[in-house]
Formats: sequence, structure tokens, C-alpha cells
Amino acid sequence: MRLYGDRGSGNCQKVSITADFLKKPYRWIDIDIMKHESRTTDFLRKSPMGQVPMIELPDGRCLAQSNAIIRYLAHDSSLLPADPFTQAKIDELLFWEQYSHEPYVATSRFHMVYLGRSKEERDPMRVERGEKALDLMQHLIKGKSWFVGESLSIADIALLAYTRLAHEGGFDLKTRPDVMTWIARSEKALGLPPAGRH
Amino acid sequence: MRLYGDRGSGNCQKVSITADFLKKPYRWIDIDIMKHESRTTDFLRKSPMGQVPMIELPDGRCLAQSNAIIRYLAHDSSLLPADPFTQAKIDELLFWEQYSHEPYVATSRFHMVYLGRSKEERDPMRVERGEKALDLMQHLIKGKSWFVGESLSIADIALLAYTRLAHEGGFDLKTRPDVMTWIARSEKALGLPPAGRH
Repeated sequence: MRLYGDRGSGNCQKVSITADFLKKPYRWIDIDIMKHESRTTDFLRKSPMGQVPMIELPDGRCLAQSNAIIRYLAHDSSLLPADPFTQAKIDELLFWEQYSHEPYVATSRFHMVYLGRSKEERDPMRVERGEKALDLMQHLIKGKSWFVGESLSIADIALLAYTRLAHEGGFDLKTRPDVMTWIARSEKALGLPPAGRH
Repeated sequence: MRLYGDRGSGNCQKVSITADFLKKPYRWIDIDIMKHESRTTDFLRKSPMGQVPMIELPDGRCLAQSNAIIRYLAHDSSLLPADPFTQAKIDELLFWEQYSHEPYVATSRFHMVYLGRSKEERDPMRVERGEKALDLMQHLIKGKSWFVGESLSIADIALLAYTRLAHEGGFDLKTRPDVMTWIARSEKALGLPPAGRH
């Protein structure tokens, strides 16, 4: 399997984290999104969405969208329990992450890390919605070890990717202590080095 | 099953369209999002995300996020073929719809239909990205009957919901003839009356 990705992208890291945990071998191919390398004719032939991460199977079939990819890789593993309603609750968080978390928490980080803006130059609407998303995570994880069920799942991986990097987007997790504990728990379970100060 | 929804919302319509097609009975409960009825204490106790659509099973378990709901309802049906990679390609479009289509095509419609803005008062960024999303749909559906595989799937339903209402958000589908043909094909297969002029 080939994994086309930008190493600084949390969406791309979701895929490598999942593949590493499941011991699925892959070859990482660097794609520099700032140089529009996901919009070349060759890339668009593989995946017309023109986005990373994207995986290419040995038979040439390609798949984009981070959460679709990790769901596919996690099929028949402990990261995606077989029970349909448990899977649905995982899906609920995967869709929420892409609609209500990533566009605010990850995009604020993108503005600071990739575009070089200061904390004060962030988009106030995105900051406000990012803070709300992190507050909801605190509400959901309080009193629990994992977001869905009793074990680590792809819901944790999807949410972890940008939440552990939230400080790089100017967000402070100190008022979400259970999120901080869950990040440390998840990083340990996944064998990841701590992403840094929170 | 109870389905909490706003009848004008394409996201909510995805769920009723899927349930109707699969002949799964439900009781529709009107939620007026403009009156913040999805943010009441009672609603938030059922679903802390505070969004519609949301379903409540007879045993009280609740599930939010339109695409998570239709994926759950479609389990073991023709709308979600069993092959894992086929499911992954469906997921790819479900996530793309929520990230790259709904925030632009549906939100532009929301601004016009719910907030009463004129076509000229739409957000130019959202209009531009909505146009791009519709162009990509034309590219993907050209020469095919359905978005994934050889039959109607929840990928078609997820994409249909707001694409058939795109004109209400000021978008013109005339330059996407294959999208228009696919809308008519899908509406017919699902037993829906045509949503209107395109």
C-alpha cells in the first residue's frame, strides 16, 4: 500500500497512526500541499478529489478522505468493533470531527503553522467554534476512557489527530482536563510520543 | 424509531428518504432549528451534539449525524453493499459531502431560504467552493449511473439531498448535465417527486 500524505497534516497522521497500530505495511509518499502536489494531473487521475491523505492499493485502487481510509484499514480489527450500533456511534464522531472540529481546530492551526499567522490573527469565528468543539469533547469524555465503548477505536484516533496538536492552533486544553488525560492515554496506547505541551 | 428533524433540511431528508426506501417505520418529530429546539436541555440529554437529524431507537439509544444515521439504517441492505472496499468508496463520498459540498451548497441555500438573503448576498467563498463541488460531481458521475458501483447506494442519497435543492442556493446545474440526469434517475429510483427546476 502507498500512502500519499503531508507529514504535518493531522488528517494524514490519522492514517499512519492506524496503519502502524494495525501493523499494516505501507510506503509513505510525501505530498507537499503548499506546492499543490495533490493537484497534479497524475494525482488527480488517481483521486479526483485532489486531497491528502490518499492510499493506493497494490492493485491500483485508490481511496481518499482520512476517516474513510482509517475505517477501511480498521475493518475486522479491535479499532472497529463488529456491532452495527457501536460502529454507528463511531461514525457519528467521525462525521462530527470532519464537520465541527477539523474545520476550526485544524484550520486555525493551519493558519498559524502553514501560513505563519499569529494567534491574534486567527479567524474569530473558527476560534469560537473550535473552542466549542473542544468543550463538547470534554463533556463527552468525562468519566470515560474512550469515546466509544470500552476500548480504543478509530473514533479516538480521528479525534486525537488534531486535538493533540490544538495548542499549535492557539487552543488551550487546560480547561478540558479529561481531554488532556485521554490524549495521554491514547498516545500511550498507540505508542506515540507526546505531541507536546497542552 | 423516532426521527427528530427539520423538514426543510436536506440532511434530515436524507434520513427519511433512506428509511422510506427501506420501509423502516419511524415517527417524525419536528424540530425547528431556527427556534433552537435542538439545543434544549431535553434534546441535549439525548444528543449532546445538539443537531438534527437525530434518531432515537425504541430502547432509547440515540444517534446523530445524517451520514452516520443513513449508513446505520442501510446496514445489510442494497444501499450498502457488503464488500469492504465498495463501502469505503461510499464512505469516501459521505465524508467528502460533509466536508466539501454541504458547507458550501447547503449553507448558501440556508442563507437564502432560512435567512432570506438574495443570491447576490451569498458568501463568495462558499459560492466558489460550491461551484467546484458541483463540478467535481459532474466529473465523477459522467458516464456512470450511480456514484459507487452499479446500483443506488447511500452515497447517491447523501449527495442527492442538497444537490437536488442546489437551485434554492442560487446554483445552476445546467453546465452539469450528467448531474441533472443522475438527479432525475435517483429521484425516480427513490420514488421522490422532482425537487424542482434545475
